[in-house]
Amino acid sequence: MSGRLSQHPDLCPADRVERAQQGAVQAGLDALLISPGADLRYLTGYAAHPLERLTCLVVPARGEPFLVVPLLEKPSAAASPAVGLGIEIVGWAETEDPYALIAKRLGGSLRRVGLDKQMWAEQVLAFQRSLPSGAELDLAGGVLGEMRMRKSPAEVEALRKAGAAIDRVHSSMGEWLRVGRTEREVARDIADAILAEHATVDFVIVASGPNSASPHHETSDRVIGAGEPVVVDIGGTTQDGYCSDSTRNYCVGGRPDAGYQKLFEVLLAAQRAQCEAAGPGITSGRLDAVGRTVIADAGYGEYFVHRTGHGIGLETHEEPYIVAGSAHVLEPGMTFSIEPGIYVPGRYGARIEDIVVCNNGIGAERLNGTPRDLVQL
Amino acid sequence: MSGRLSQHPDLCPADRVERAQQGAVQAGLDALLISPGADLRYLTGYAAHPLERLTCLVVPARGEPFLVVPLLEKPSAAASPAVGLGIEIVGWAETEDPYALIAKRLGGSLRRVGLDKQMWAEQVLAFQRSLPSGAELDLAGGVLGEMRMRKSPAEVEALRKAGAAIDRVHSSMGEWLRVGRTEREVARDIADAILAEHATVDFVIVASGPNSASPHHETSDRVIGAGEPVVVDIGGTTQDGYCSDSTRNYCVGGRPDAGYQKLFEVLLAAQRAQCEAAGPGITSGRLDAVGRTVIADAGYGEYFVHRTGHGIGLETHEEPYIVAGSAHVLEPGMTFSIEPGIYVPGRYGARIEDIVVCNNGIGAERLNGTPRDLVQL
Repeated sequence: MSGRLSQHPDLCPADRVERAQQGAVQAGLDALLISPGADLRYLTGYAAHPLERLTCLVVPARGEPFLVVPLLEKPSAAASPAVGLGIEIVGWAETEDPYALIAKRLGGSLRRVGLDKQMWAEQVLAFQRSLPSGAELDLAGGVLGEMRMRKSPAEVEALRKAGAAIDRVHSSMGEWLRVGRTEREVARDIADAILAEHATVDFVIVASGPNSASPHHETSDRVIGAGEPVVVDIGGTTQDGYCSDSTRNYCVGGRPDAGYQKLFEVLLAAQRAQCEAAGPGITSGRLDAVGRTVIADAGYGEYFVHRTGHGIGLETHEEPYIVAGSAHVLEPGMTFSIEPGIYVPGRYGARIEDIVVCNNGIGAERLNGTPRDLVQL
Repeated sequence: MSGRLSQHPDLCPADRVERAQQGAVQAGLDALLISPGADLRYLTGYAAHPLERLTCLVVPARGEPFLVVPLLEKPSAAASPAVGLGIEIVGWAETEDPYALIAKRLGGSLRRVGLDKQMWAEQVLAFQRSLPSGAELDLAGGVLGEMRMRKSPAEVEALRKAGAAIDRVHSSMGEWLRVGRTEREVARDIADAILAEHATVDFVIVASGPNSASPHHETSDRVIGAGEPVVVDIGGTTQDGYCSDSTRNYCVGGRPDAGYQKLFEVLLAAQRAQCEAAGPGITSGRLDAVGRTVIADAGYGEYFVHRTGHGIGLETHEEPYIVAGSAHVLEPGMTFSIEPGIYVPGRYGARIEDIVVCNNGIGAERLNGTPRDLVQL
């Protein structure tokens, strides 16, 4: 249950571990402890699953990195790109204590250690017990987040491909979304189509009628009726390991009422304004406000209950977060969603979502290209 | 991106939170902090996804439990079985600090808090900062593990259904597994078949020829040849939320050599002996030894490089672990895999895996029913 990433070498360049070491020095961390997940894939290309048995990339701020894996995962780890990066693979047997092994190799002079932000609590507390007393536990997230936030051209290209794949699924919605079918039936067909794009199915939201008023409704056995709005929010991970996330709004067999249509026009104007504003130099907070103002000025302010968006890359949700009050300045190469929504509880709602890349030359480039209007099927 | 579990009420009885409180008292914990995942589903039926925004069930040892969720998840949480259990849902807005909110409600007299074993490090450290200084962080895993390990009849039935579904997939292997196809092509077809069983695809391992010698090889573009052994290890989660995990061994277009066949006979004898021995009263360590002895006596001891098995339920891997040296005594209602393997590096390997339930009346009952012999297609 662990595996390799079928990854283009450009997507896992050899200098990342060294840059992480420089980042650790700057952050005052003596070592980074990276568990399975996006950070490990980013640094080594090794796509291990998080499991109860410890797998951990140890990156001393100064010294050689090594990858500690359960003995039975050693063949998988040895077949991963990590080996090509010159990272030593250290296997541990079922009856050994991998935390003690790591503490011993790191030595007694540790002051501050940066943990993977998604490391499991049972591993965090095991490290706390095993590392020298007085060693302070902090997060490696700052170091990794700073690196992962700024995508290379190869990464942007991988996200562009992921966006094109999910666009093809949205473009085929008319094959599946029909009056009389349940949300769950439609979602199954969408999932099959995502798989047919050689991607994993990360989430499929089909929210019809009043369900569209719940931002994170997934699916239900509700039968889709004529003239009802349907929010379809879908995403998958390509074989390169990069994610997609796009929301479109549909209606079948009739048109929603005038109230919904007015709401939708406001939302569309807000999302367009935000996509145009998402260039280098704007802060995340200011970008959030661009859409929030449009929506509030039209009288729907109380119904836009979430942030504008989230970064995307090896994870669907990563830095930077486009959220009210954030002073974070957007830079070229940052990729994130722009997904304002308006939700009138108990009645209906809508959300429009594109992935955009902050681009030096042209401001913001949308990585999703299907029409953002309400799609009448 | 969060959701509800379509769950039979018997699978989430109302007394679990109260039993967790009793467990907390016995363990000397003042509160349990449960993040999204199997523990949260077990206690409340709420199938939230782990996200960077904090969702946390707070179970004070004495007092009323409450579920803290991001405001935009509140409709999903409110539609989950948690509400029917009388659990208050507390939403937090994007600009609020949910850790401070929880610390305030728990009050200043906390001494020891039990964290969900899979809580993310960034949340663990945020709680460490927000809870009263001197409050010790421990794991809730002991309390939850003790409960989850002992399945109710409804849970065993759910696992039986999950086992029957994965058995149907194994039974159809002849439709997909053929000489000249790649492991990845076969795996795609298997994944479709798991989906057609209304289950999620948790993992699909297709390991052919020398790849069969790597216990956790997943798939590759290797073309399957005539007479090669192929290990197929697959599992999914049903709509009830319960997992399957079954490994069978195939060969196509010819027979593997005599050396492999001898190895396989030894493995089959070991696995059969372990399934028969897996009744109430035996320790996990002793059950591991039952198979290990058979394999070692035949001269393959060095090639059985992993534990015998793992518990299974709402997670594919959970307690109890069937591992050398464990003094843990198996009890009625415990469900776990029995999956010895023999792997000759660079040549070939085999693994046979069934899920069994430790049963008072009949010793051990296998929840997988397909033939365990080498299947010639």
